[in-house]
Amino acid sequence: MSNQIHHKDIAKVPEPTLRRLPWYLSNVKLLKQKGEQYVSSTQISKEINIDASQIAKDLSYVNISGRTRVGYEVDTLIEVLEAFLGFTGMHKAFLFGVGSLGGALLRDSGLSHFGLRIVAAFDVNPDIVGTAINGIPVFHSDNFQEKMGEYEVNIGVLTVPIEIAQQITNTMVSGGIKAVWNFTPFRIRVPENIVVQNTSLYAHLALMFNRLNFNETK
Amino acid sequence: MSNQIHHKDIAKVPEPTLRRLPWYLSNVKLLKQKGEQYVSSTQISKEINIDASQIAKDLSYVNISGRTRVGYEVDTLIEVLEAFLGFTGMHKAFLFGVGSLGGALLRDSGLSHFGLRIVAAFDVNPDIVGTAINGIPVFHSDNFQEKMGEYEVNIGVLTVPIEIAQQITNTMVSGGIKAVWNFTPFRIRVPENIVVQNTSLYAHLALMFNRLNFNETK
Repeated sequence: MSNQIHHKDIAKVPEPTLRRLPWYLSNVKLLKQKGEQYVSSTQISKEINIDASQIAKDLSYVNISGRTRVGYEVDTLIEVLEAFLGFTGMHKAFLFGVGSLGGALLRDSGLSHFGLRIVAAFDVNPDIVGTAINGIPVFHSDNFQEKMGEYEVNIGVLTVPIEIAQQITNTMVSGGIKAVWNFTPFRIRVPENIVVQNTSLYAHLALMFNRLNFNETK
Repeated sequence: MSNQIHHKDIAKVPEPTLRRLPWYLSNVKLLKQKGEQYVSSTQISKEINIDASQIAKDLSYVNISGRTRVGYEVDTLIEVLEAFLGFTGMHKAFLFGVGSLGGALLRDSGLSHFGLRIVAAFDVNPDIVGTAINGIPVFHSDNFQEKMGEYEVNIGVLTVPIEIAQQITNTMVSGGIKAVWNFTPFRIRVPENIVVQNTSLYAHLALMFNRLNFNETK
């Protein structure tokens, strides 16, 4: 029941706020390491150069209240932020496409500290189907539907070649996947009720190269 | 000289355009595989659900002209887009912090197809210093300055723990690094002339979890 209320609360959080909250979290973790017990939005503001009023506003979405003059309790703020961001829960995911990037993500155990556990991967390459990477089994793509019944998964990580990105997305969605973490540079289309999170490393590279060139020719 | 002009041209490209151009590129690559020789912005528009006028406007930043009724030549468009986005050049980078994510990025050879080649990595862990991952040597962090003279590098990939993210950034910048690809959830601060590209997988996870919860409780 309290979980329901929590879900309802966070439903209204705007995207920019959700992008900034992890910054506050990492900053407050650092202050904790330095031995701080309380932190104010003014203090965070000085460290990361974001308006204190903006920080206070962002934190108002999170169910925590600061005390006048002393601010937020560091331990509580970390705990509440981690829970709010979903990092303390464990969301199980399947990964599709064990190529270079897919394999790299399977080996990145760090994701599990932030609430995501990839429990199985799918590919068609006979050299890797039947093996395990970092303890995660790689199944043949044909077994996806069967494995959906076995594992309780609602997130799919998409790291396939672009030419099958849409097709694999369709398969995932019809199999019951509710959120797609899309690492391909392909713009996939999904039904309205499916969440898509695009993380295109290549678009980020293009941006970085462009700004670098700009600075160099200034 | 023509290179200079190219750099000057791309300097004015807005961020949203730079984020969309890789979508067009991947879509056009797909059309090429299907045997298409020409493509119009209307055609791309249908495939990826972005306004044709927006696509035409975005493509106007790129130095290519379409022909009335037939559109852009597929081969030329791919070539020009790849060059424009910096994917055909080779930008050398150092990686800092060979933990779980850092190691994963070293193993992702895919980045080199998009213009980034990580040529060396730095860490302090005696177990990995002196080894090589995917052919990329791992040096002790103390040797960074010396290696800057040896390799010609201006990009630093930041995958260290948050508690040293700022310190390592400062070291990079004073050593001559001009662009930082920041994978940590920490908001680093740099001088005005330094490019920072934030790619926080954790912020993306938080967003995905939030939207997923929202859909589930609707």
